[in-house]
Amino acid sequence: MKSVRMLGSVGSQVGKSKRFILKEHFRGLPKKSDFQLVEEDLPALKDGDVLFKALYLSVDPYMRPTALRHPTGITMFGSQVARVLETKNPAFKVGDNVVGFFGWRSLTVVNPDEVMSPYGGKSRPYVLPDFGEVPLSTGLGILGMPGNTAWFGLTKLCDPKPGETLVVTGAAGAVGSIVGQLGKILGLKVIGFAGSEDKVKWLTSELNFDHAFNYKTCNVRKVLSEAAPNGVDCYFDNVGGTISSDIMESMNNFGRVAVCGSISSYNAESRPTAPVTQPAIVMKQLRVEGFLVTRWSNLWFEGISKNLEFIKEGKLKFKETIVKGFENTDEAFIGLFQGENTGKAIVEA
Amino acid sequence: MKSVRMLGSVGSQVGKSKRFILKEHFRGLPKKSDFQLVEEDLPALKDGDVLFKALYLSVDPYMRPTALRHPTGITMFGSQVARVLETKNPAFKVGDNVVGFFGWRSLTVVNPDEVMSPYGGKSRPYVLPDFGEVPLSTGLGILGMPGNTAWFGLTKLCDPKPGETLVVTGAAGAVGSIVGQLGKILGLKVIGFAGSEDKVKWLTSELNFDHAFNYKTCNVRKVLSEAAPNGVDCYFDNVGGTISSDIMESMNNFGRVAVCGSISSYNAESRPTAPVTQPAIVMKQLRVEGFLVTRWSNLWFEGISKNLEFIKEGKLKFKETIVKGFENTDEAFIGLFQGENTGKAIVEA
Repeated sequence: MKSVRMLGSVGSQVGKSKRFILKEHFRGLPKKSDFQLVEEDLPALKDGDVLFKALYLSVDPYMRPTALRHPTGITMFGSQVARVLETKNPAFKVGDNVVGFFGWRSLTVVNPDEVMSPYGGKSRPYVLPDFGEVPLSTGLGILGMPGNTAWFGLTKLCDPKPGETLVVTGAAGAVGSIVGQLGKILGLKVIGFAGSEDKVKWLTSELNFDHAFNYKTCNVRKVLSEAAPNGVDCYFDNVGGTISSDIMESMNNFGRVAVCGSISSYNAESRPTAPVTQPAIVMKQLRVEGFLVTRWSNLWFEGISKNLEFIKEGKLKFKETIVKGFENTDEAFIGLFQGENTGKAIVEA
Repeated sequence: MKSVRMLGSVGSQVGKSKRFILKEHFRGLPKKSDFQLVEEDLPALKDGDVLFKALYLSVDPYMRPTALRHPTGITMFGSQVARVLETKNPAFKVGDNVVGFFGWRSLTVVNPDEVMSPYGGKSRPYVLPDFGEVPLSTGLGILGMPGNTAWFGLTKLCDPKPGETLVVTGAAGAVGSIVGQLGKILGLKVIGFAGSEDKVKWLTSELNFDHAFNYKTCNVRKVLSEAAPNGVDCYFDNVGGTISSDIMESMNNFGRVAVCGSISSYNAESRPTAPVTQPAIVMKQLRVEGFLVTRWSNLWFEGISKNLEFIKEGKLKFKETIVKGFENTDEAFIGLFQGENTGKAIVEA
């Protein structure tokens, strides 16, 4: 490994890479035994290759359903903020900080043109723009996939207009907490649902939500009839299932629903059921659209710069739940489904 | 009633009107005792009023959920093809054939500017365009609301492209049977689901559907994997519920769903449940939109003339299930929910 240039700030474990293998397909809640942590020698770099060192890894709810589309035995997929340690590729300089789908690996030797998205298709790592004082880890959160998911999902699919009412579920999560704040910036009344009293308090006291409720202890339709007496116009759906049926029945004619996730059903063993949504969809003429943020890849940096601008203006706040240690990536992921994180869940490698 | 001009062709019962009162809100399947038939004297015509005689009355699935939005005691709402018997309104001439929301009445004295839609808001009766050889009763079917529902729902919301695959449920019904034929005219592969062997046979042998299945006896996902090996691009949903969940899971990425009705849940006592649709909506990035055909009121005659053109070209066929006798309107309506009709259900007054 003679060509490696050591950077004091990123440690000195170059030579051995650790990675998590997806050992079993998840059944019910993901558990530690679904993964296997292995340590391996790194291959030598070929022309075009780059050696990336993970600084921060992302754990996200989408990984739960997406894993079922992959065979067991693969390196667990996922994105990370990584730094270039060594390069035989002119597009990547030593010291560059990038976001890439390198999976759950501590060190990665790869040709960037060959990196695959977990959804299928290639996904080239990109060098992070200058975040100024904002931490690099946000490249996995508010200034990355979740931030763009919130910005594009809300603005492109919910068609929000000032004075309208927006409901967001999973409101204290990585995406939901941004959606609600963006809704306020755009002049909407914002109502969030989250899963604990602490989260609910954070939404109204720090994030400027108009109302927030603990879905575990409230009657959704009743609290909406009080908090949204003029009905709901936009619904950003992170959870699916029964609460979504309830919210859709509280919507106004021609309401818009952006379906971002369905975390309520990701861990179900059989197909979960919920009250049928079609009567509300027909009678209220709702438009419901699901999306993966990759559809706006061509606008990626536009989304990041918009959210960065809002952060710098003090209009947009973020929170990260950081788990330290690459070896704990599996536990950080499992925690997503136990309501443990507020804001974006990040592993600091 | 001295100003009444009798028309031999429309009978001679002018003077007394019969109407059905919505006596009880439906619970479960509608039943005869939910209605009350009464006979009354007609009021004299004031300036602007018109006396309409019902020729054909429409019974439609939408009436089931919509009735719950109205108080009991009203005249049961609905549209009819009617003829002008007497007029004090310059816009309507004696002998004109019109379609109007006069409700379940044999004779109606009303100012056309005051006629209300069952959805709320005014809905002025319109004089039927010249149908040529096509029967007037189709003004309630293929050349009226159901025909426009099929044409606009399919073309405006399903975004069909030649070579794509379209699935339609309630395929032997008033709307579904037109949707499937329009799909064929537009160059799509068309698969229908209906509720009896006779209906299924009619769809493939007479209406040119590529495939049709009896949803009561088939495994929906299995038959779709065989009949639509390239997946489903467009889904015209008349029924909602479990079959819709199944079909949505068989759809391709960026599939489009037009939600026209939810007949599977109209008669449920409590909120029925079905497998949650959000996972498919997210992962396949589906767009699901509900609609009432009234949103295209400004294009109404464009839809009618399009379907009339297809009929005259021999490309579009229709079937009517006709119940004779105004007094049997309640039974014709109840029959809708017992799978009794193929094509449009009509009462001949």
